[in-house]
Amino acid sequence: MSGDCSAAFLFDLDGTLIDSVYQHVLAWHRALEEAGIELAVWRIHRKIGMSGGLFTNALLRETGLTIEPGLIEQLQRRHAEVYAEHSDGIRPLPGARELLAYLTKAGVPWAIATSGRMLTARRTIEALGVDPARVPIVTRDDVRFAKPDPDLFLAAAARLGVAITDAVVVGDSIWDLLAARRARALGVGLLSGGYGADELERASAYRVYQDPLDLLQHLDEVGVRRQ
Amino acid sequence: MSGDCSAAFLFDLDGTLIDSVYQHVLAWHRALEEAGIELAVWRIHRKIGMSGGLFTNALLRETGLTIEPGLIEQLQRRHAEVYAEHSDGIRPLPGARELLAYLTKAGVPWAIATSGRMLTARRTIEALGVDPARVPIVTRDDVRFAKPDPDLFLAAAARLGVAITDAVVVGDSIWDLLAARRARALGVGLLSGGYGADELERASAYRVYQDPLDLLQHLDEVGVRRQ
Repeated sequence: MSGDCSAAFLFDLDGTLIDSVYQHVLAWHRALEEAGIELAVWRIHRKIGMSGGLFTNALLRETGLTIEPGLIEQLQRRHAEVYAEHSDGIRPLPGARELLAYLTKAGVPWAIATSGRMLTARRTIEALGVDPARVPIVTRDDVRFAKPDPDLFLAAAARLGVAITDAVVVGDSIWDLLAARRARALGVGLLSGGYGADELERASAYRVYQDPLDLLQHLDEVGVRRQ
Repeated sequence: MSGDCSAAFLFDLDGTLIDSVYQHVLAWHRALEEAGIELAVWRIHRKIGMSGGLFTNALLRETGLTIEPGLIEQLQRRHAEVYAEHSDGIRPLPGARELLAYLTKAGVPWAIATSGRMLTARRTIEALGVDPARVPIVTRDDVRFAKPDPDLFLAAAARLGVAITDAVVVGDSIWDLLAARRARALGVGLLSGGYGADELERASAYRVYQDPLDLLQHLDEVGVRRQ
């Protein structure tokens, strides 16, 4: 941490600030099924949060199918459509708005870094009450490689003007934590994406909290002194 | 195990033989939201597989709401309706049909024991190609207390005419494994319901496999000699 003890926070979006993982999982399941690809739902859940391209590659590899760029693009488009149809029921996670408001008020820099595209992320970010004109938001569109590559978090730290080694990455999936580790940030896990605590700890989470509310209540454990 | 070394298998249904957990989770989420109860999806996932009454009690307790019997009944009815609307995309898990066929052919007794009601379970059981006239199926309707109480598995063993201590309980949730332990059966966990291996092991799973196919390929580890 730097001399003035100000950490910075880099947040994943889906499953970390917004309660959207299960809807994404079932939208992928539907898109795959429509393309004639049968894959158990839990296997999709375990891959979600990776870069979309890597994700479809990984899923197709598990099914033993040939990976055609046209198919991957078709699946991604259909996933986005099905997800949009079901996005009415999607809400911020408990404490998400309060956590972001607290950090802003305390002068702690924060940004959002998501493997999703801005097209899908925009509505989600609006639901959080976040103004994209005032908060750095790094999406898949901005970097060459998404998670588990470190690029998204490195870009987010650069946008904040903080050293990545002073940053706390908060995410719900092992891909967030692996990307945090590669970036040399401190990774903190949340259970709100539906992964078990041990999965996150084995991916080198420094601490694991239930959801943004639980993190807000324990900010002093990750380097923010409550005022 | 008895002298003729024949184990018996007692299977949970949702998440163990059929790929339906995530659809059940989102159907509960919708039913709760329609009743004005906001609850993060992962918390519903972590409670599913319990008896329906216990489940709604537990969820309402987490929200701090008063538990009215009328509300619980309304939620259960609405969940069943929403689930039925989305049950088109629900498939047997990989290897489920093959595992059951193998056990039948090998003369190993097996039964199904589910916390669900027969009304919801019937379609699922048909999708598995199981004939309820030939296989003992114990549902919530048959016992006083569902999982994590041991009653469902005890009743299933009794229907098979085997000692519960000779039975292997196969389930995807910690409620299956806790019920297995209370019943004094050997509990085996599957990852196909979306829980992590450590959650199942901490609930005293003797072994954890990915799905029914993986279990079929490792039956000799749980007391069935492959022929």
